Amino acid sequence: MKEIIAVVRMDMMNRTKKALTEAGLDAFFAHEAQGRGKGFINPAVLEGVESGYEEAAAVLGEKGKLYPKRVLTAVVPEESVESIIETIIEVNKTGKPGDGKIFICPVGDAVRVRTGETGAKSIA
Amino acid sequence: MKEIIAVVRMDMMNRTKKALTEAGLDAFFAHEAQGRGKGFINPAVLEGVESGYEEAAAVLGEKGKLYPKRVLTAVVPEESVESIIETIIEVNKTGKPGDGKIFICPVGDAVRVRTGETGAKSIA
Amino acid sequence: MKEIIAVVRMDMMNRTKKALTEAGLDAFFAHEAQGRGKGFINPAVLEGVESGYEEAAAVLGEKGKLYPKRVLTAVVPEESVESIIETIIEVNKTGKPGDGKIFICPVGDAVRVRTGETGAKSIA
Repeated sequence: MKEIIAVVRMDMMNRTKKALTEAGLDAFFAHEAQGRGKGFINPAVLEGVESGYEEAAAVLGEKGKLYPKRVLTAVVPEESVESIIETIIEVNKTGKPGDGKIFICPVGDAVRVRTGETGAKSIA
Repeated sequence: MKEIIAVVRMDMMNRTKKALTEAGLDAFFAHEAQGRGKGFINPAVLEGVESGYEEAAAVLGEKGKLYPKRVLTAVVPEESVESIIETIIEVNKTGKPGDGKIFICPVGDAVRVRTGETGAKSIA
Repeated sequence: MKEIIAVVRMDMMNRTKKALTEAGLDAFFAHEAQGRGKGFINPAVLEGVESGYEEAAAVLGEKGKLYPKRVLTAVVPEESVESIIETIIEVNKTGKPGDGKIFICPVGDAVRVRTGETGAKSIA
């Protein structure tokens, strides 16, 4: 059982959701976030920060420098991880900075509240 | 030390919060999300997708098909996990699809910012 | 590879972001949440709950008792964990209840969507 956390572009969420559903993923949840990766940062500004320019650091620290993202979370069986990641990449890869990141994290167990089922059954 | 992530109905959040507080859980945080489990999906639509009908897939992929949920997160000592899960189930179990899911994830360590305490003390 | 989840005061987010950027952390994302720690709770009210007063429990369960927080998430190399935690503490420590918590969680792997890179490269 693994938790897949995908940080994707805001306007890619619907397509990602649709592709995952078609690929057989039934259960997931998503929330709004703001974020950035290395690629988002203007290299000139970054260089300014590294050279100790306070103005550059101020720009980097500004709220405007975080971009609206969507975070999609799904807890899935081990054997589904690879295909889900492939699906997410297929939809979200544009080749430009900001395509997003996917994290795969361990999960100890899961419980379906309605039935009390745990383990594999709870996420089947 | 475990992270408990509970995805529950939006209108169950207040009751869940109250029950957890009465059960002695002091620290937790929550955020808004949208989600669905298998139970949310109209079986006829799902069948349509499985049969390759693009229209059905489009419906499943629509934003409207995700439901507003609340995600509650708490990091707790190992020995509290079971009773917290029981409390969450007790409050949220209606027997209808959409009651929610609970995930139990490993946590390496925690730090209380105010004191710098780590380990068991930081979440006591 | 570790996931660092920091729950901080809403009005500390910009300063935290700036400090982390200056410290060399390029990639992170953040979302809005509501939460509380032990310190947020009025001890008199808590005592009332422990003594079985339903009114006290009602107050604790009220929505108003959760405070707006920001949750910052970053997935970083093992060797950066300590300095990032120090940076977060330095910015957020006021000595008053509500300074926040930091959780360090295991991550199995990460993928950069744009390049398909995994492992250390994906978060470099």
